[in-house]
Amino acid sequence: MTTAPDLGFTTLRWADGKLLLLDQTKLPQIQEEMEFETIPPLVDAIQRLCVRGAPALGCAGAYGMVLGVLDAEGREQWSAALKESASLLSAARPTAVNLVVGVQHILNFGEGLLAAAAAASDKFDVDLATAKLLDQAIAFHEADTASCLAIAENCLPLLHDGARVLTHCNAGALATGGLGTALAPLHLGASRGVNFQVYADETRPLRQGARLTAWEMARNGVPVTVLPDSAAASLLASGGVDFVIVGSDRIAANGDVCNKIGTFPLAVMAARFNVPVLVLAPATTIDPFCPSGAEIPIEQRAAEEIFGEDGAREGVEVYNPAFDVTPSSLVQHIITDHGVFQAHGKGCEAWQSYVAGLGNDRA
Amino acid sequence: MTTAPDLGFTTLRWADGKLLLLDQTKLPQIQEEMEFETIPPLVDAIQRLCVRGAPALGCAGAYGMVLGVLDAEGREQWSAALKESASLLSAARPTAVNLVVGVQHILNFGEGLLAAAAAASDKFDVDLATAKLLDQAIAFHEADTASCLAIAENCLPLLHDGARVLTHCNAGALATGGLGTALAPLHLGASRGVNFQVYADETRPLRQGARLTAWEMARNGVPVTVLPDSAAASLLASGGVDFVIVGSDRIAANGDVCNKIGTFPLAVMAARFNVPVLVLAPATTIDPFCPSGAEIPIEQRAAEEIFGEDGAREGVEVYNPAFDVTPSSLVQHIITDHGVFQAHGKGCEAWQSYVAGLGNDRA
Repeated sequence: MTTAPDLGFTTLRWADGKLLLLDQTKLPQIQEEMEFETIPPLVDAIQRLCVRGAPALGCAGAYGMVLGVLDAEGREQWSAALKESASLLSAARPTAVNLVVGVQHILNFGEGLLAAAAAASDKFDVDLATAKLLDQAIAFHEADTASCLAIAENCLPLLHDGARVLTHCNAGALATGGLGTALAPLHLGASRGVNFQVYADETRPLRQGARLTAWEMARNGVPVTVLPDSAAASLLASGGVDFVIVGSDRIAANGDVCNKIGTFPLAVMAARFNVPVLVLAPATTIDPFCPSGAEIPIEQRAAEEIFGEDGAREGVEVYNPAFDVTPSSLVQHIITDHGVFQAHGKGCEAWQSYVAGLGNDRA
Repeated sequence: MTTAPDLGFTTLRWADGKLLLLDQTKLPQIQEEMEFETIPPLVDAIQRLCVRGAPALGCAGAYGMVLGVLDAEGREQWSAALKESASLLSAARPTAVNLVVGVQHILNFGEGLLAAAAAASDKFDVDLATAKLLDQAIAFHEADTASCLAIAENCLPLLHDGARVLTHCNAGALATGGLGTALAPLHLGASRGVNFQVYADETRPLRQGARLTAWEMARNGVPVTVLPDSAAASLLASGGVDFVIVGSDRIAANGDVCNKIGTFPLAVMAARFNVPVLVLAPATTIDPFCPSGAEIPIEQRAAEEIFGEDGAREGVEVYNPAFDVTPSSLVQHIITDHGVFQAHGKGCEAWQSYVAGLGNDRA
């Protein structure tokens, strides 16, 4: 397996018995790591979005579970700490499915250790169990890193040297335990000397493009230009873009792509100017049981995101959906850690059998 | 002629020998008028965007010329003050063409008064001349008010009761000396009991939709909902919009429309969902000597508009065009103070002869 290149920052890592997280609330002004030795400050950091992005939250949850048992003495304490940690971490952001997945994965593993020791009537070695739990959390993190790398390797051959890539939101290293999803091939290519020009949509209302994507690209030395979301059409019209590359929050079985609000109009404009749209996401993003984008519920977000802290305005309502759905027909390729797929038209059979296979695996 | 309805605020007015401007930098939090008796604070207010919008700036410039001669004693002082005022006001915002038009209009009129008195060898009555100058400034303002009303009357029959209207930026009463351009029929209709639901694009980077359009609609009691620019596509896809109505900064002879960045993708999305796009602007916005949108230069704006006061970011560029061009084919009607036109396809002959006539008038 290829090794991931050094980007000049690390979203999260374990070192010297502590979890270290890059504090994303201080970006782009300050690059600073926070150290965690216990769970309560980690829960607080998760709630304040010091770490965000589905895969990164999963890794933070997994490592958090290890923090929870570090001081436990004896089997009873260790077992109680494991359960208590899972409940505290899972409740930090109730809608973050990946956080719960990471937590649950380590909880299950820890309970397996307890059960195995009980079945064998062995003395329960707390230090050994904690070491195994950490190994499992590291393996969970490494699996995410490997998935990002595989997405990057699968996409990179499609991008020529000098390619100008427009992206939306932050599906980057800051959102994962590795190189990111949409931004992974750009980071990997840059580390191999491929030249890219990245255009980052600002991505209102939370400005993940202007704050995070621009920062992580610049940090890795990739030329990056920020633009208002509404200027993407002009940039595409000017012939200044070779590829639109985005991540996804959920991909339906028919290839419809749910992603950050603004992805759909971007794909429509790209189609108008014959610019291919590539969607990059781990296979876990595909929902084989969701037939089409029409079945994906869209979360409405708060007025504060538009109006700032002072919030509501007399007589003014807000329409602030978090996501939109891009029809499969507007997406040239869906690229996962398993390969490059086309979900519509001629050649979609490979996609269909891939999704069916994912469904069988998860059934 | 119809009288313009009371909207609950006045963008600018003359009263008791003073110019009063609604301070738009304090909106939407505070509705407060500023009083001007001399030119220097007015120049400062224009530069700080206390008043903005092309037609409103024209009116402010015209009234400003009157302020300039209020204290003049005798013909020489009056004449010198007139010239000095024109130069100070015109330089306040060099790129604001309408400001210069308003200033120049009153300058020409004042110089006419001076020349007529000299030709007749009359004693120059300073008070009378100032009164005539004020009448001329008021007439200039009234012409703008009338133009807004005519646009409103021409558009209103196209909009049904209950119509849901999506707009972009602020082509409203706050940008003119009257009811506005794009928002004029909504204000006028609302005052006559027609029900509208207005959707206001936030309009990054300067947020004129969220700050100004939302405020002036709510102030006039019209239901208004603000959305991120990138959410307009979802709203259109949901069937929630009956009309897209926008203003324009410049309309080419072929009907291509230059307007605030984001208008073009909005028109593309509207076409995808069969929602008619109406462009509302005074005839003065049409440039009969500009063949098409391709000939319209697009101003690039500063990085500060995207990144805020802290401005530049190391290694990060900005693409921030102020305007984009919507092809004529995406615009159902162009509505001016002179009527309703269609600039493309069958039925575009009326538009063509209208533009040719405007060209002859201005040649």
